[in-house]
Amino acid sequence: MKITSILAVGAAALALVGGSVSSAQAQAAKVDSLTIRKIYDEALLRGQSYDNLRYLCQKIGARLSGSPQAAQAVQWGKLTMEKANCFDKVYLQECLVPHWVRGAKEKGQILGNKGKGIPAAVCALGGSVATPGNKPLRAGVVEVKSLAELKALPEAAVKGKFVFFNRPFDDRLIEPGAAYGGAGDQRRSGPAEAGRRGAVGALVRSLTAARDNNPHTGATNYGDTPTKVPAAALSTQAADQLSQLLAADPKLEFELEMSCVQLPDEKSYNVVGEVTGSKYPEQVITVGGHLDSWDLAQGAHDDGTGVVQSMEALRLLKAVGLKPERTVRAVLFMNEENGTRGGDKYAELAKQNRETHLAAIESDGGGFTPRGFNVESTPAVFQKVAAWKPLLAPYLASQLTPGHAGTDIEPLVAAVKPTALFGYDCDSQRYFDLHHSALDTFEQVNRRELELGGASMAALIYLLGKYGL
Amino acid sequence: MKITSILAVGAAALALVGGSVSSAQAQAAKVDSLTIRKIYDEALLRGQSYDNLRYLCQKIGARLSGSPQAAQAVQWGKLTMEKANCFDKVYLQECLVPHWVRGAKEKGQILGNKGKGIPAAVCALGGSVATPGNKPLRAGVVEVKSLAELKALPEAAVKGKFVFFNRPFDDRLIEPGAAYGGAGDQRRSGPAEAGRRGAVGALVRSLTAARDNNPHTGATNYGDTPTKVPAAALSTQAADQLSQLLAADPKLEFELEMSCVQLPDEKSYNVVGEVTGSKYPEQVITVGGHLDSWDLAQGAHDDGTGVVQSMEALRLLKAVGLKPERTVRAVLFMNEENGTRGGDKYAELAKQNRETHLAAIESDGGGFTPRGFNVESTPAVFQKVAAWKPLLAPYLASQLTPGHAGTDIEPLVAAVKPTALFGYDCDSQRYFDLHHSALDTFEQVNRRELELGGASMAALIYLLGKYGL
Repeated sequence: MKITSILAVGAAALALVGGSVSSAQAQAAKVDSLTIRKIYDEALLRGQSYDNLRYLCQKIGARLSGSPQAAQAVQWGKLTMEKANCFDKVYLQECLVPHWVRGAKEKGQILGNKGKGIPAAVCALGGSVATPGNKPLRAGVVEVKSLAELKALPEAAVKGKFVFFNRPFDDRLIEPGAAYGGAGDQRRSGPAEAGRRGAVGALVRSLTAARDNNPHTGATNYGDTPTKVPAAALSTQAADQLSQLLAADPKLEFELEMSCVQLPDEKSYNVVGEVTGSKYPEQVITVGGHLDSWDLAQGAHDDGTGVVQSMEALRLLKAVGLKPERTVRAVLFMNEENGTRGGDKYAELAKQNRETHLAAIESDGGGFTPRGFNVESTPAVFQKVAAWKPLLAPYLASQLTPGHAGTDIEPLVAAVKPTALFGYDCDSQRYFDLHHSALDTFEQVNRRELELGGASMAALIYLLGKYGL
Repeated sequence: MKITSILAVGAAALALVGGSVSSAQAQAAKVDSLTIRKIYDEALLRGQSYDNLRYLCQKIGARLSGSPQAAQAVQWGKLTMEKANCFDKVYLQECLVPHWVRGAKEKGQILGNKGKGIPAAVCALGGSVATPGNKPLRAGVVEVKSLAELKALPEAAVKGKFVFFNRPFDDRLIEPGAAYGGAGDQRRSGPAEAGRRGAVGALVRSLTAARDNNPHTGATNYGDTPTKVPAAALSTQAADQLSQLLAADPKLEFELEMSCVQLPDEKSYNVVGEVTGSKYPEQVITVGGHLDSWDLAQGAHDDGTGVVQSMEALRLLKAVGLKPERTVRAVLFMNEENGTRGGDKYAELAKQNRETHLAAIESDGGGFTPRGFNVESTPAVFQKVAAWKPLLAPYLASQLTPGHAGTDIEPLVAAVKPTALFGYDCDSQRYFDLHHSALDTFEQVNRRELELGGASMAALIYLLGKYGL
């Protein structure tokens, strides 16, 4: 397809919106269509997201909150924004973050009545305590498919054992994100509940639709549990194997050894780059991703892609000669994975400074092919945004879905009531195969998919910056 | 999202189609909605495409027409269909196919005035002759960006040289397939034109948006050129390097060595599995992919995925208890890559047997996340198909785009005038990164994306089989 025919499609679609269109509106639509085309051209021809991501993933790598690499990432983010030369100011927002360290020991095995142990691929869940004395912990196993099932068990069935949470992703769901939501309570709350009921540890089936041998970590939350028990994720293959062996031999034991530790909170930072609005500087549009990542890989799709796209979105606007009428901030949030302290701090400062927040956009669902945006707003605001769909349709990025926008921008709702929150929405099939596992590396990111995402976010910022909500 | 809410969305959307809906129509829509949900459930929970593809890719592997592996693939396809136990008959359609073999020698290097050669990643284009005597061929290089530019050059500028076709993909195009179309004449027709104008060989920039060191093969067509010159693809990195060095030193030479050979045609086969229609057996719906592949990798996305999805589509229909009212054939076409002899044979036999073809569906754009279908039909038929969109929308597979459906089913148009052709359409960003290169392996295919595709094809066949066109 020729570029010109794409433009024609966009214009024709636009002409259909709302029936009659005034000539001023038609002229504005033409300007918008051409401007957005320029944004995508810049991204596809000279996009910098991919090279920035390569550096973040391969030179800095895993960057869990509190780690030296997270500190390095803060410096890198600040420097990269300064060098991009498209921000009026670049600054840090200090926050205290949890500092959990995996430790060197991490081993699991299934022990039958006879013979030697069968290795099981495990990893500590984020925030887990170590096994007592950092020594192997051996116990029987009771398998459940839900927290409710655990609660219904008699105390004797649980006491002194590992509780094995083994409810898989519901594969029938078209969006793996919905399956993640459906299975996630096992990881988040299962270990706390196991501890409350006298178990010695918790084993959780990895939150993924993949059928492989990679364990997937992620935060577990002990809450106010008096007894914190060690908690590990099993790869889906290891979980299936354990379940099968357990069915054949309910008395088998599992041995877990982990030396993870929770250290005192560390000082860390959000990184903020700001372009002051030319006409309405007091109205803020935020675009961000989170700078921290889990520690098993490089945090490429989670959420290096959101970080580089957020910075790139503002570079794209400047590169095509745009100066937003509203203030736009690219924010690299710290500590999304195990605390949201950066998101909380950003909201707290926004409230303290009595800021007016028009909109916030987050990219934290991977850097795959764009589909559009999730939107949290009133129906009236949703309708206003929906009128822009024809402008994004030529880029296959016009799907708007009411729904969760992002963890880091969520605290803004209570703090400053933004008019709308947007979650960058992209093809979701592969995300949870990689998410929080050793597979989340730079090689899994496709250059064009990534750059198209940054362009889609820039296009939305352009429209928000020009028209408001 | 709950399953029930997905159904509700589908039903609500459906209710909007065409304004008023009779209660019989509403009832039919509900049945269709529930049936299609079952098809996707079966695919996502018990789909066999992924395991079938693993076998085809990893146990048989590359299967260029005429090769022993292509013959193996025919036997595998027939056996797999027979074992699937969902076809009324399984048979082969004999055809003669070209038999080109790459040969052991394949080497390129850039030779400057001084110093040693710089290795350049090359591969012979499919159908290319060897370098004379299978020996290294050394000559100067003239770079062009188009066939027109070549034709405008004086004879002396070309004679005795390699013509280096170096027009890249137009990265601005949102669909890489359009960029492939825009650059493809260089590979298909460039070498023939170079030979006609006295060149000794042709070097063609790989047809990909990827910036890496993998050369991408593909058919070149000498047509009636009196002088066939050897033709190789350069990786995009090698092409960029050659271009830069050439700019600095227009007299540099290139050395190419290839021992490929065209052998006599071989006997081969399409594999056909047929389910006879319960009500209109004389109306045929074809669904297919191509069984042959290029020889550098495993032909996973091109087109192992189309092959396994086509077989799976019919298994899915049977698994959920459906018996199509029209006759449906799954066809594994032979020789799409360098001859389309299988597609021609299928059309020839359809004509010879005076068959009525309602529709043909081809999956040959990779096994990525579904978007919908490309459609070749009259506007009236397109409208009829468009009325089914709400049924596919819950699966994000409802995008219908007028456009090319598939190379193997195209010959049916002249032969038997099917009412419509459909090309399975999926996310296209990664396809040409892998296409025809050493990267097209099983590992690049995602289970859910693949199985969702087979389900989408099955859903379309269900609707075509029930309602006709």
